[in-house]
Amino acid sequence: MSGFSEDDLAAALRRVLSGEHPGVRVGVGDDAAVVEPGRHPTLLAVDMLVEGVDFDRGTTSARDLGYKAMSVNVSDIAAMGGSPRFAVMALGLPPGTDPGWVVELTSGMREAADEHGAAVVGGDLSRAETVVVSVTITGEVPEGGAVTRAGAAPGDLLVVTGTLGAAAGGLRLLQAPPQSVAHVMGSPWAGDLVAAQLRPQARVGEGRILARNGATAMIDVSDGLAKDLSRLCKESGVGALVRLEEVPVAGALLELDKVMPIDPLLLALEGGEDFELLAAIGEEGAARAAAEMHERFGTSLATIGQARKEPGLVGVSAGGAERAIEPRGWDHFAGRGG
Amino acid sequence: MSGFSEDDLAAALRRVLSGEHPGVRVGVGDDAAVVEPGRHPTLLAVDMLVEGVDFDRGTTSARDLGYKAMSVNVSDIAAMGGSPRFAVMALGLPPGTDPGWVVELTSGMREAADEHGAAVVGGDLSRAETVVVSVTITGEVPEGGAVTRAGAAPGDLLVVTGTLGAAAGGLRLLQAPPQSVAHVMGSPWAGDLVAAQLRPQARVGEGRILARNGATAMIDVSDGLAKDLSRLCKESGVGALVRLEEVPVAGALLELDKVMPIDPLLLALEGGEDFELLAAIGEEGAARAAAEMHERFGTSLATIGQARKEPGLVGVSAGGAERAIEPRGWDHFAGRGG
Repeated sequence: MSGFSEDDLAAALRRVLSGEHPGVRVGVGDDAAVVEPGRHPTLLAVDMLVEGVDFDRGTTSARDLGYKAMSVNVSDIAAMGGSPRFAVMALGLPPGTDPGWVVELTSGMREAADEHGAAVVGGDLSRAETVVVSVTITGEVPEGGAVTRAGAAPGDLLVVTGTLGAAAGGLRLLQAPPQSVAHVMGSPWAGDLVAAQLRPQARVGEGRILARNGATAMIDVSDGLAKDLSRLCKESGVGALVRLEEVPVAGALLELDKVMPIDPLLLALEGGEDFELLAAIGEEGAARAAAEMHERFGTSLATIGQARKEPGLVGVSAGGAERAIEPRGWDHFAGRGG
Repeated sequence: MSGFSEDDLAAALRRVLSGEHPGVRVGVGDDAAVVEPGRHPTLLAVDMLVEGVDFDRGTTSARDLGYKAMSVNVSDIAAMGGSPRFAVMALGLPPGTDPGWVVELTSGMREAADEHGAAVVGGDLSRAETVVVSVTITGEVPEGGAVTRAGAAPGDLLVVTGTLGAAAGGLRLLQAPPQSVAHVMGSPWAGDLVAAQLRPQARVGEGRILARNGATAMIDVSDGLAKDLSRLCKESGVGALVRLEEVPVAGALLELDKVMPIDPLLLALEGGEDFELLAAIGEEGAARAAAEMHERFGTSLATIGQARKEPGLVGVSAGGAERAIEPRGWDHFAGRGG
């Protein structure tokens, strides 16, 4: 039907994914992979990306898609304060998919895994109507060191790594009529926005720094700050006061604002897919983490507010006005704003 | 759009999947699950089931689908000689999917996991055009005890657990015009065939017995004996002689043969989805494994032939005539016979 067999494709992927990794005893190509036992508690996370929902083959290259599929999983490990170890993937592919496209996808996965010392050790191929990419990753975290969403206490500072809204800005650029944005696509700021959307960087080292410095709760900002903060607060049984002028809006959004009608703060609050880390942490820990993070990775750590006993999320403007922050953001079933 | 949010559904699944499991420190609902470290090498396997390719919602209940999705993964662990530990799932769901259907699906997964002492510890929900179910499972295997596909040597016996062809027979029954098979659907043999298709049993205990008794190579028969034997032989660099009259054809196929035109031996060789184990093993080990397996689980172990130096698969009939066995079976891209 499509000119290649499952075994042919599996053999090609095996070549892409083989490589020396000290922990892998049996890699891609058997019923299961065999990897060395961990000395520490094991983390397990899974994410599925679906064509037409999470990505568009028209605006995403196979390599970027593979990179992102791995990166979002690594980000889940980072959000627990752990380090990624081994990944497996399941691919659903429409009949007629170019095997070269699949090899590129897998190369992108390997690239993102390699950056964090992780290895892709197995996979499954299936026919599907649209491309479906599911990655599962394992990680390790020191005994007692896993940071869940549930430990924030009133008084903890709320901190967020890097900047927010860039990935959503990049999506706007990619989805805009090409002629309307052609004049800016070569600029550094547009490149930053598109890269944030297509090749998100997982904050593994930053997550470990936050964990070591006593973060009480942590989550990665995958569905937008408002939504993910509401999840963290709900699990922790706290509310939050957010100083809106402290939310680290990606600078490139100010440039995008000149090209199309956007609200930079809104994209930062509700845009999603930034894969930055949001944590609750004590004041001293936050200061130490910020210094360490800046020195080691050049990553900023913004204090955006504080957890408090009163439930709900409240934003405070620079002028002191308070307003409720609705937990809006990406919902796979309700769509935007659910 | 579909009346429920991702968080609502996630909360419902969390209730289904929560439970006391000694190895789980953080279960469903955080960025990643946290489980106790294993003392032994870790196994990792993934399988994706796609609506319209691997199952049909018209003939498969949500609970059976969940059961099967877990079972086929457990089978991959069994085929390495290991025991399953922890699983995560990723679900792609069309808008408007009944949340009750998803809860049933997840209950089926939990049922199959519970039977093997495994726990479902995490998941991801995504919108998709058709239902996609991806399960990843971890397992443990004693140090040095993993049985790959690659160790068979000339002279090793080829053994297979249970019987073959029943799952394919069940699929024929389910896909037949209902009125043409209504008169047999209540019979025990038809029930056996349908159960083999919808609720396959992973052979975990049997796999461990084979591994302990020196199996040199092992694979689960997911795509048909002919195809999976060819894979085992290719990885091991051997050929095989199969005594066709020793292939353990499921007895119920002889009844099905009276109702519709089938070739029981062909279904056993090429039907797939039986999730029995095929192993290469020495003569003494085979005898010990057969006795132990029968005593502990009531499972038969058939010796169907022998690995040999000459490449290729050859079938020998009862009369002594030889013919090549083509590695036909299920291929996700080429379809049947690829």
